[in-house]
Amino acid sequence: MPYIHLPEDLPGIRGAMAFRPETAKPLNDLVEVLLHQPHTLTAGERELIATYVSYLNDCYYCQTIHGAIAAASLHDDEELVKRVKADFRHAAISEKLKALLVIASKVQKGGKHVTAEDVEAARREGATDLEIHDTVLIAAAFCMYNRYVDGLGTWQPRDEAMYRERGKRIARDGYVTVSKEYLPVEAAAPSSFQD
Amino acid sequence: MPYIHLPEDLPGIRGAMAFRPETAKPLNDLVEVLLHQPHTLTAGERELIATYVSYLNDCYYCQTIHGAIAAASLHDDEELVKRVKADFRHAAISEKLKALLVIASKVQKGGKHVTAEDVEAARREGATDLEIHDTVLIAAAFCMYNRYVDGLGTWQPRDEAMYRERGKRIARDGYVTVSKEYLPVEAAAPSSFQD
Repeated sequence: MPYIHLPEDLPGIRGAMAFRPETAKPLNDLVEVLLHQPHTLTAGERELIATYVSYLNDCYYCQTIHGAIAAASLHDDEELVKRVKADFRHAAISEKLKALLVIASKVQKGGKHVTAEDVEAARREGATDLEIHDTVLIAAAFCMYNRYVDGLGTWQPRDEAMYRERGKRIARDGYVTVSKEYLPVEAAAPSSFQD
Repeated sequence: MPYIHLPEDLPGIRGAMAFRPETAKPLNDLVEVLLHQPHTLTAGERELIATYVSYLNDCYYCQTIHGAIAAASLHDDEELVKRVKADFRHAAISEKLKALLVIASKVQKGGKHVTAEDVEAARREGATDLEIHDTVLIAAAFCMYNRYVDGLGTWQPRDEAMYRERGKRIARDGYVTVSKEYLPVEAAAPSSFQD
């Protein structure tokens, strides 16, 4: 049971966002830019970074919904998502993404764990400054989202079909659009970065 | 030296934000709502939570600038800020804020460290659901900001006067307004939550 009174029918971060629409808006805007807007990393690659960090932080809701969005973005390859969580170094992903996942796993432990060598290794595999920046910020942001979801004791149903269905919709429509379902109109309005 | 090419004259998070204005906007909007907008917790109390979490994460830039904003919000009481960092249980702050700092310190370790008893203790001291929610989210958000600042190896000058001067301005004008100095006009425009 959540530690504060959240809307009862909304699991995970959705209940917390409906409780506080003023913070829901920048939280949705941030994840929209990082994971859904056009990018040189595919949405699937960025969702794998978010899923892996959420797995390291042991957040069931976040690793399951972002794992589902990742799979939906990767031709429904749920096995690849499982493989990345279990042992990304031997998963069928690019060497560049492996190097970025090393950086993300360091950020999960703490910002000071990242080294110039980690960044240089990613650069050798072709990672750009923007890709390195966004990897650091995605990993940092999920250290926030995971703590927000678990720190409030939110409801996290074990219902794989729900996550799979929702994952497909978010992969297609993005975070800001799907959040309109449970946020007040004003909070879910398109943010000014899209104006 | 930063791990990627950031603007050379902007320390800490400011260089990273200038590098990526699309993410700077929601990052500034979030901290504006959490720490600067009107609230039942004073700005000084909320900045103390941000400062304490940044201290636990050992982020020099964040604990110094938010410590300066906290002091500016607390009649320039720099000693109180130092005392909260060193031993908040014996600092001259309310029992409610002490209970909220316990929750924040648990969130810093990981969301699952927060217990129903921690929340109940805060409630006994008069904390509301909104105050508990925002404490969890402030602590979670600074686990992001701290990792962002340190994970990119940003420049963090040891210049107390700079932090003190800037702290006073942010305490007075807020994050979104002050960020206009170094962000492109569009990214620093007032966010739609203020519309």
